[in-house]
Formats: sequence, C-alpha cells, structure tokens
Amino acid sequence: MSQESNMDKKRKGLVQVFTGNGKGKTTAALGATLRALGHGLRVYIGFFMKGKYSYGEFSILAKLPNIEMANYGFRYLTDPAHIKPEEIDQAKQALSAARKAMLSGRYDLIVLDEINVASGLKLIEPDDVITLIKDKPENVELILTGRYADNKVIEMADLVTEMVKIKHPFTNGIPARKGIEY
Amino acid sequence: MSQESNMDKKRKGLVQVFTGNGKGKTTAALGATLRALGHGLRVYIGFFMKGKYSYGEFSILAKLPNIEMANYGFRYLTDPAHIKPEEIDQAKQALSAARKAMLSGRYDLIVLDEINVASGLKLIEPDDVITLIKDKPENVELILTGRYADNKVIEMADLVTEMVKIKHPFTNGIPARKGIEY
Repeated sequence: MSQESNMDKKRKGLVQVFTGNGKGKTTAALGATLRALGHGLRVYIGFFMKGKYSYGEFSILAKLPNIEMANYGFRYLTDPAHIKPEEIDQAKQALSAARKAMLSGRYDLIVLDEINVASGLKLIEPDDVITLIKDKPENVELILTGRYADNKVIEMADLVTEMVKIKHPFTNGIPARKGIEY
Repeated sequence: MSQESNMDKKRKGLVQVFTGNGKGKTTAALGATLRALGHGLRVYIGFFMKGKYSYGEFSILAKLPNIEMANYGFRYLTDPAHIKPEEIDQAKQALSAARKAMLSGRYDLIVLDEINVASGLKLIEPDDVITLIKDKPENVELILTGRYADNKVIEMADLVTEMVKIKHPFTNGIPARKGIEY
C-alpha cells in the first residue's frame, strides 16, 4: 500500500477514461469524486452534456467542501446529424472552463463528464481534447467519461475502462428512474 | 423522463451487477449511492472484502444522512487456495447482515460491495446469493459488485455492466494511490 501523502503535490496525476456503452461511467466518476473529497483533494467537475437537469447527486455534492461543478450543454441533441450552433457553443464553453480549471492550480482532480461524447459528435474538436491532455499539469488527475472515446485519447490515457452493457433494463422498456439512473 | 416520485414505495427496485476485471465497480456503486442519497433514498452498504482500511469515501459518506455502512472481511486473502475459517466467518457475517438490512424495510438501496468475489472464492455459497436475490423486496434496489459474478446471478439481474480493463496503471507498475484508487 502506498504510504505517500494524499496531498503530495508531487503525486503524479493520471489520465483516466471511462467509456463504452454500459452503465456506470458517470457514476464511477462521481464515486471517484467522493473518494478524492474524502481524502481532502479538491475537485472540479465539468458536465458537458447534462443540461440544467437537477440530478440527485448534485444536491449532495454541492453541500461538500472542495468541489466546484459546472453544467453545460443539453441532455439530448435535437438532431445529431444537424448540430445547432448553440449546442456547439455550449460544448466549447465547457471545454474552455475545463481548461481554465485544470490550469488554475486550484484542483487535484478534474472530471470532464461526457466530454468523449461531445468530441465524438464533433461538438468540440477531438484535437482540442488531445491538447488538453497534453497540457495537464503533472499533479492533476484527469477523468474523461462518455462513450465514443477517441482512439488517440485512449492511447494517451493511463487507465481506460470500458463499461460493457451485458444487460440493461432500458432495452427491456423500463424507463430511467429518478434516484437510480439520474 | 419518468415522473414518478423518488420515494414511491411501489417503485420496482432492480438488481444491478457491476463485474469484470476493470476499474470502476466499487466506484460506480459509490456514485449510485451518492445519487440515491441526493434523492432522499436510504442506503445500506455492506463491504465484503474491504477490511478495516479507512477509505477516503467512508469519511464523506459517514457524514451524510440516510446511510449505514458495515465493513467485513479482509482486503486480501492470505491464500485463496487455503481459505481461513475467519475469512469465511467474516463473509458469512457480511451476508447475514446484508440479508437483515435488505429485509428490514429501512433501506431503498442495498449495495453489496465485492459480494461477487466472496461468492466466487467460495467464502459464501453462491446459492445463498441467489436466495438473497430471490428474497429481495420488490421496492428495494440491489447492487452487487465484484469480479467473478456468478452466471446465475447475471441471469437473474436486470442490469449487468462488465467493467473491462483496456489499460490499467497497476499493470504498468504504478502502485494504488490514496485518494484516487482507495
């Protein structure tokens, strides 16, 4: 077991990716946030595709110290084949805020939720995500979630987990349930 | 989007399984816990294989209302080929406490962390896990985590996600880091 200090500024932060079509990507990032907060780390979460929806976890996280959350984008695109300027604008804002947070020195963990989707749908340039990873300060941990993770991002990441759907109740006609899926 | 009340006692609780060799199983269960608490649901978490180690997330979760946590077992078995009586005893206690919590009517979500490992290593009988699932009250949500999920458990579950390791820093010789992996 590592004995290093949890606040050791020289601790090397890794790049983690949670991708795949299964459940648990955002959820795992929230769990990682909780764990980090529990050790006194400072966390920034940028939500790229969650819109203004009031998720249950927000209300809890918002009460905790050392966390900042920022919401951008829309939960569902009107039409992925015809992306609207405001959808692109929101994603660009999310990326810009994420970059600023990452470089600010104010956070130990940066979670960028659904950034892979935003990149996969070309709301933001995949190259800009790659630049973000390249510019990551060494002590900052970066977690990127969402399906469609770019191959280059996967290549650059230290830790990649694919959440694979083996069974999913949505496919059985059961709708998303408040408090459980969102 | 479902409009049902989050406290609706008639809400059907599902059985969720997070398994596989990748990272994010326990972490996803913690995220699910956070989400449930955010909606005012009551949560029980039974840790089967975490020992007395003081995880960062505990300290945060312990401060929140509507959650009860119970730790059993050992983080690592001395020798999986020669399981000790106290290792079996701890797992049986964990299962018994889980059963009691599930049937108590006091919780909306029951998380059984690493129960699949305990069952896979035969610390508890796989049949007892199946009985547990069969006896689940309809409104209770049940999350079972850990690799080696039993085939029968997967068959009975409503939602199964396999966390597949694409890349993992442990395999690159980087030790587990406090605040991030535990």
